[in-house]
Amino acid sequence: MKPNYPFNCWYVAATSEEVGRRPLGRRLLDVPVVLYRTGAGAVVAMRDRCVHRAYPLSSGHLEGDRVVCGYHGFAYDPDGVCVDVPSQENPPIGARVRTFPVFERGPLVWIWLGQPGAAALRTPPATPWLTDPGWASFGERLHVGANYLLLHEHYLDLTNVFAMHPANVPPGIDRLPYLDEVEVSEMSVRYTRALPPARLAPWEAEATGLPRGPEYHRREQGTFVSPALHVQRWVIDTEQGDSYEQLRMHGFTPETPTTTHVFLRVARNYSTDRALVSDHLRGFFLDMIGRDAAVLEVVQRQLAEEGEPGRDINVKADRAAVRARRVAQAMVAEETGRPLPRTPTNAIARS
Amino acid sequence: MKPNYPFNCWYVAATSEEVGRRPLGRRLLDVPVVLYRTGAGAVVAMRDRCVHRAYPLSSGHLEGDRVVCGYHGFAYDPDGVCVDVPSQENPPIGARVRTFPVFERGPLVWIWLGQPGAAALRTPPATPWLTDPGWASFGERLHVGANYLLLHEHYLDLTNVFAMHPANVPPGIDRLPYLDEVEVSEMSVRYTRALPPARLAPWEAEATGLPRGPEYHRREQGTFVSPALHVQRWVIDTEQGDSYEQLRMHGFTPETPTTTHVFLRVARNYSTDRALVSDHLRGFFLDMIGRDAAVLEVVQRQLAEEGEPGRDINVKADRAAVRARRVAQAMVAEETGRPLPRTPTNAIARS
Amino acid sequence: MKPNYPFNCWYVAATSEEVGRRPLGRRLLDVPVVLYRTGAGAVVAMRDRCVHRAYPLSSGHLEGDRVVCGYHGFAYDPDGVCVDVPSQENPPIGARVRTFPVFERGPLVWIWLGQPGAAALRTPPATPWLTDPGWASFGERLHVGANYLLLHEHYLDLTNVFAMHPANVPPGIDRLPYLDEVEVSEMSVRYTRALPPARLAPWEAEATGLPRGPEYHRREQGTFVSPALHVQRWVIDTEQGDSYEQLRMHGFTPETPTTTHVFLRVARNYSTDRALVSDHLRGFFLDMIGRDAAVLEVVQRQLAEEGEPGRDINVKADRAAVRARRVAQAMVAEETGRPLPRTPTNAIARS
Repeated sequence: MKPNYPFNCWYVAATSEEVGRRPLGRRLLDVPVVLYRTGAGAVVAMRDRCVHRAYPLSSGHLEGDRVVCGYHGFAYDPDGVCVDVPSQENPPIGARVRTFPVFERGPLVWIWLGQPGAAALRTPPATPWLTDPGWASFGERLHVGANYLLLHEHYLDLTNVFAMHPANVPPGIDRLPYLDEVEVSEMSVRYTRALPPARLAPWEAEATGLPRGPEYHRREQGTFVSPALHVQRWVIDTEQGDSYEQLRMHGFTPETPTTTHVFLRVARNYSTDRALVSDHLRGFFLDMIGRDAAVLEVVQRQLAEEGEPGRDINVKADRAAVRARRVAQAMVAEETGRPLPRTPTNAIARS
Repeated sequence: MKPNYPFNCWYVAATSEEVGRRPLGRRLLDVPVVLYRTGAGAVVAMRDRCVHRAYPLSSGHLEGDRVVCGYHGFAYDPDGVCVDVPSQENPPIGARVRTFPVFERGPLVWIWLGQPGAAALRTPPATPWLTDPGWASFGERLHVGANYLLLHEHYLDLTNVFAMHPANVPPGIDRLPYLDEVEVSEMSVRYTRALPPARLAPWEAEATGLPRGPEYHRREQGTFVSPALHVQRWVIDTEQGDSYEQLRMHGFTPETPTTTHVFLRVARNYSTDRALVSDHLRGFFLDMIGRDAAVLEVVQRQLAEEGEPGRDINVKADRAAVRARRVAQAMVAEETGRPLPRTPTNAIARS
Repeated sequence: MKPNYPFNCWYVAATSEEVGRRPLGRRLLDVPVVLYRTGAGAVVAMRDRCVHRAYPLSSGHLEGDRVVCGYHGFAYDPDGVCVDVPSQENPPIGARVRTFPVFERGPLVWIWLGQPGAAALRTPPATPWLTDPGWASFGERLHVGANYLLLHEHYLDLTNVFAMHPANVPPGIDRLPYLDEVEVSEMSVRYTRALPPARLAPWEAEATGLPRGPEYHRREQGTFVSPALHVQRWVIDTEQGDSYEQLRMHGFTPETPTTTHVFLRVARNYSTDRALVSDHLRGFFLDMIGRDAAVLEVVQRQLAEEGEPGRDINVKADRAAVRARRVAQAMVAEETGRPLPRTPTNAIARS
């Protein structure tokens, strides 16, 4: 399978906690990358492959700010330049490994694996709720055996909840209303939807502590911020004018064309000092994402067996997902010069 | 490996017992199929793939006579028409999955995966001994990691018994006589062979209860009924004119080009009310087929490593096997328009 | 991956101990081979595949000097001629499997898998220290998941010891001197190196029993004798003019393009009657080769992921390794008529 992800895009490489004074090897966009932190705390990312032989630098160790290969001891400075070859006086001129721009903000380390000069033209997407003291958040990293676009499309169409997670739906709602709006920009796709008033689902009551009796209005917003990031916003509005907001952020970073690193973060603007709420929501979302992943891995295997693409029939609920796929395809087409694939089944079928 | 099995042929899909009110997913001729039974008991077979996303319907559930996808809840009638998409008022026009003709008779469900209109022109092979009250039968389903033709050829040349199953051969016989006859029709190949008089092998004595002292005549007949079915007939004739007949039927259904579902049925016209005889024969045949499968899986792996075909030297004992392979190849050639492969080593070598 | 090993070369097929009266199946240069010994003790090697069906003869058994297939009982004489087909009176004319020249000397059995007539023009490399009573030797067989050239190159550049096996280096030496000489002949590459005086490493003291106080001169010589054989000579010279010599021989026999059989032999000209020294050295070398293999298997996997070759930067320490690779490539090019690959990164980088 040809990669269907763009390189000119900031992706989450790791959580801040994961990167330290032991080299961390990770495959990102099918590129082997080693990540580590200098003595001063700066994050370094470089190609995880010695210039000399095909051995990963992540199997070596750090000496000061240098990473030293575990095979013949070649040493590299944080700029990727080979500065020591123990078997000779001077290292070969020009021997260096490629380094990658990184950007650390809050709990995440972002990486740019695209065209070297272009990184400076863009910044990773803003994630203010991860650093704003008015919000509480927690995270998990997962590995899913499915292409990253299957994950994006899955979370851009929540109508699967009735079949997959019926206990999570607010009581009395047995069908989601159509999307109110789907906004498409150069790189992002956003839908919004208002839900009819309904009482709280058990997980909502548990998390918010709101009384279970009344009905509440809810607003849902899903955003394909970029090929690297999906953000879902879920707001419960009370009669008193309070808004209980919750953001579920998925950093989707392709590991290979058929596997994805998922960096889940969940933030909320209520009960920010209650660890029990975090624990509850963590269990709730891990349980849900586990079921999501199991389904998507089945889909990935079936797609691999089918070989040829293009059989899917899309329906109205797929409006945002289909547009997001289109955005990603256009970015890949622009980068590679390959033509944008025809997607004959992408037309929305009649209601 | 290109498929070497014809589609225009009835194959065993499942035993009747296997098909019920839980959808059963099974790969047949490399096609994913879901099988289930309607409330009225009719067997339904359709492509095991939702029209919407690549998710197997067999991972969903039944609602009445409908199968409902476990991902977004798309529902299908037994005729494959999508009749409900929960996220919108009406399902897309024309959304349907392919269904396959099925035919249930006795303990077996047959399926037609070929050209849709052509099913009606043929019927599954007759298997009267499976339903005739004068016969007793039992069955097992097995999975073998070898191409279906390797199985056919194996059972069309029983001279391997001396190397593989020497304890099963009637005492005193150390070589099988040549085949008396090999009849070839459009789709079938049948050989017959008379054995010289010999006393009973232990398994024969155990099954028939006949006295071990005398010698008996035996007639053996092996039939490649179609690419889907092999039937072996083994008759022990007594001096008194009684015939102890036993039929071993193998439904061979390719799962993939290199794996096969084997539907074994063993029927007999003697001791039909004695369960102990069935138990004895079941153990006997399972033991034998287990050793057969182990050998054929080794052959399959070696063929895969060899890559190019056509090295085999055939001998007289392969007469029926070679003709059966030829029949299957001709059916595939006719269906696909690909030319019949040259099989330079197929000539029978001199005795 | 196309094979990068020549066929016209004697390789180690097995140790003498491994070949006996049970057929031994082994894949050598991606060819399935069966090895056994006749009643008189001669080693026989033939293609491990019956002429009739793709079943390995090594799964059969011996009858006298014949190997009998376990499927239908076809029997073969040591010259590969099929002499019995149990199901008919005479075997097919001309039915035979290919046999391979073998050569047993000391503890090893060598095989020629190349052009049939050419075996007689060459002999396996001389290994006098394996049979000379003035030397003691022992051996082990290992299986490594890496191309045979990765193993050759690894042992032709010992500068990895500082990163991989620092405890084995004589104390006070923190860098190996440059190679004194690299001699290249038609099929072999040899380097020599003199080490500066140093005290004994623990393993040297243990093996030789020499006093630990003084410093000793050492001479090291590594030889790519042929694509099949690497020999390393390690000599410790005493003030008294005694030479403690040790030879480490690696028979590298490709199993497949990405896996290798390693036949390790270690010989010494001192303490030849002390089994404890053998035990010590066996543990020492097995430990080291285990770590070597782990690294090379990682390199092999990374090369497989990279797909395209040619990224390696070579340094001065690779002089012998690069020439050995060139010798092997030239042999393959000559055999196959494929052009010698360009190796743009093979130039030695400046010191």
